[in-house]
Amino acid sequence: MFSSRLLRRSFIASAKRYNSSIAGLDASKVKVTKSDILKPLVANKDLVFGHTFTDHMISADWNEKEGWMAPEIKPYGSLALAPSAVVFHYASECFEGLKAYKDKKGNVRLFRPDMNMARMNRSTARIALPQFDGKELIKLIGDYIKLDERWIPSERGYSLYLRPTMIGTQEALGVNPPSNAKLFVIGCPVGPYYKTGFAAVKLKATTEFVRAWPRGTGDAKIGGNYAPGLLPQRLAAKEGYQQNLWLFGDEHQLTEVGTMNLFVLWKNESNELELVTPPLDGSILPGVTRDSILSLAKQWGEFKVSERKLTMPQLKEAVKSGRVQEMFGAGTACIVSPIKAIEYLGEELAIPLDPSNPESQAGPYTKRFNDAIMDIQYGDVESPWSVVV
Amino acid sequence: MFSSRLLRRSFIASAKRYNSSIAGLDASKVKVTKSDILKPLVANKDLVFGHTFTDHMISADWNEKEGWMAPEIKPYGSLALAPSAVVFHYASECFEGLKAYKDKKGNVRLFRPDMNMARMNRSTARIALPQFDGKELIKLIGDYIKLDERWIPSERGYSLYLRPTMIGTQEALGVNPPSNAKLFVIGCPVGPYYKTGFAAVKLKATTEFVRAWPRGTGDAKIGGNYAPGLLPQRLAAKEGYQQNLWLFGDEHQLTEVGTMNLFVLWKNESNELELVTPPLDGSILPGVTRDSILSLAKQWGEFKVSERKLTMPQLKEAVKSGRVQEMFGAGTACIVSPIKAIEYLGEELAIPLDPSNPESQAGPYTKRFNDAIMDIQYGDVESPWSVVV
Repeated sequence: MFSSRLLRRSFIASAKRYNSSIAGLDASKVKVTKSDILKPLVANKDLVFGHTFTDHMISADWNEKEGWMAPEIKPYGSLALAPSAVVFHYASECFEGLKAYKDKKGNVRLFRPDMNMARMNRSTARIALPQFDGKELIKLIGDYIKLDERWIPSERGYSLYLRPTMIGTQEALGVNPPSNAKLFVIGCPVGPYYKTGFAAVKLKATTEFVRAWPRGTGDAKIGGNYAPGLLPQRLAAKEGYQQNLWLFGDEHQLTEVGTMNLFVLWKNESNELELVTPPLDGSILPGVTRDSILSLAKQWGEFKVSERKLTMPQLKEAVKSGRVQEMFGAGTACIVSPIKAIEYLGEELAIPLDPSNPESQAGPYTKRFNDAIMDIQYGDVESPWSVVV
Repeated sequence: MFSSRLLRRSFIASAKRYNSSIAGLDASKVKVTKSDILKPLVANKDLVFGHTFTDHMISADWNEKEGWMAPEIKPYGSLALAPSAVVFHYASECFEGLKAYKDKKGNVRLFRPDMNMARMNRSTARIALPQFDGKELIKLIGDYIKLDERWIPSERGYSLYLRPTMIGTQEALGVNPPSNAKLFVIGCPVGPYYKTGFAAVKLKATTEFVRAWPRGTGDAKIGGNYAPGLLPQRLAAKEGYQQNLWLFGDEHQLTEVGTMNLFVLWKNESNELELVTPPLDGSILPGVTRDSILSLAKQWGEFKVSERKLTMPQLKEAVKSGRVQEMFGAGTACIVSPIKAIEYLGEELAIPLDPSNPESQAGPYTKRFNDAIMDIQYGDVESPWSVVV
């Protein structure tokens, strides 16, 4: 595959910088400075996604001569960076999103954190930021969330959203791989994405903007993939659509929904029940929730499961002939987000939710995927995906 | 045109936020705080591009409720930003590059600053950052560079590089147009891009990575366009090539060189002498130097001047048949950067420099464009492009 070959080359390039004389990220060297003043907790009902932060954060600096300095867990606070720092100019930045959950026994759990670590190292490689040992960052996250444990809600549907981030901090305006970088992790308690159960969204299938393309960066979780989506999102919102459905190419292939992966459950051209999601061709973000849904669906064995190309004309025909059963977006923030309509070239296509319950905002399989994943995340169902820290 | 129509829509969207109750950027409200300690100047010969900064900077904050706060000119120093600030996560950032020159009479001059202001407002519109009045920012830049005038070198070839930057500062992790932003300008004295006159570069025509795509953001000077170029640049450097030549599409269209626009002077298919640069189709950065070279070439009237598509197979055939006379990149940092070779699919194509002088690192027209633009920048030739501040 094209992208894996190149990433291998870039890993080698990174590894060469990682020679024996420079230090790897080492959780055992962590320096912990506790905050003198602890902030008041925010009631679960008052939480707004991404607005409330815990008392502490993880921070670790890197430079190309010495490697990773001893990491710190320290009071949550501002970063002081020179205005020439490359992160402000060339989007030298990438991130991850994962959640910590409290189970009924009071254990703190992470959901497939190894996948986030691996993806983050692919993201850093793609923009010439340094590699790090993901196991060490998971240890640091464990230390951090135990220190800030009072911020992890115990009510089902609530969790502590974690945001590992790496930025280039070199103080120079030349366009070059940064000689200095900072890794940090912040955490915010969050509730269910939709306060009153599911709220199905309407999408605008966007033909005027393109999110990603072959041999670009659509499969990396880098900052630069996000800012360009804000204007299309604002224009869609003005027309009453909550998210963009990103298309690609002259055939209008479906790719992603806003910042989520996309799933279609339909009766396919051969009248088989099939769950389809676009393939990881280098322009699709390889979502952890996406992978989990594919795995669960294959375990269930109740319908065909396919990673394959699907175009808007194909989807439109299927909607019109009543073959589409459910559609949803999938991502860490919401798990699944049911879709009830898609505007495409001036026409609004109605996507079914739950035919047995006109009040419902999600189809039966959409709900089932959501519940199955939550059962694992909260430790109600044992699974190697859920890691007690 | 596709992109101008969309930008018009986005300007309207921005203008709506700009209602009468919120303030525009107003240079007359500037608050000036002088630095107590002035840094020692750096000798011209010791300047490295983008490493030395002056004593002061411009800073202005914006929020969606009140608009632009009173701008400040204040000591150069760190920005303190919450780790949740959107600039660190979603590449909510765009910038400009322009230079201030000192002429023989001691006047301080800017080169076509109106073009930078207009482009910056197109960049901010594309990523849902606020608009500002470019004339007001030019006034502020005038105040700032007069205060830091001792940093503007008077030797020809030296100048003060200015970096206007806008970043989203909202402290929230939701992927939404930012409610808060910061505009800042920093300046650094710089020398000629190549210390010893021109140094022609070797390019790698890159087929494994794609810089930009139609309906993407290739024509906006946003941070997200830069980080993805670092890995290809590093891989090219390992093979001995200083810059990437970005190609597009199955026909391998030439688009840009590293962070510069591209020019080819050749005998075309009809044996006419022709200067060609790729057209502004939405995926090319509309460079100020690019525009200046096209204008000068049209004034000279000595050869055909075309903005048109050119493919690598066409170029390769022209090189092999001896029709290519000169090639160069063009940008604010270097003015022009002569090209002496291009690696394409395993073959190195030699591009002529100056046939009359084997020692020369630039062809005669390349040098002439460089000199003509410098004459205007330093006020040796009067032109409306050079603005005394």
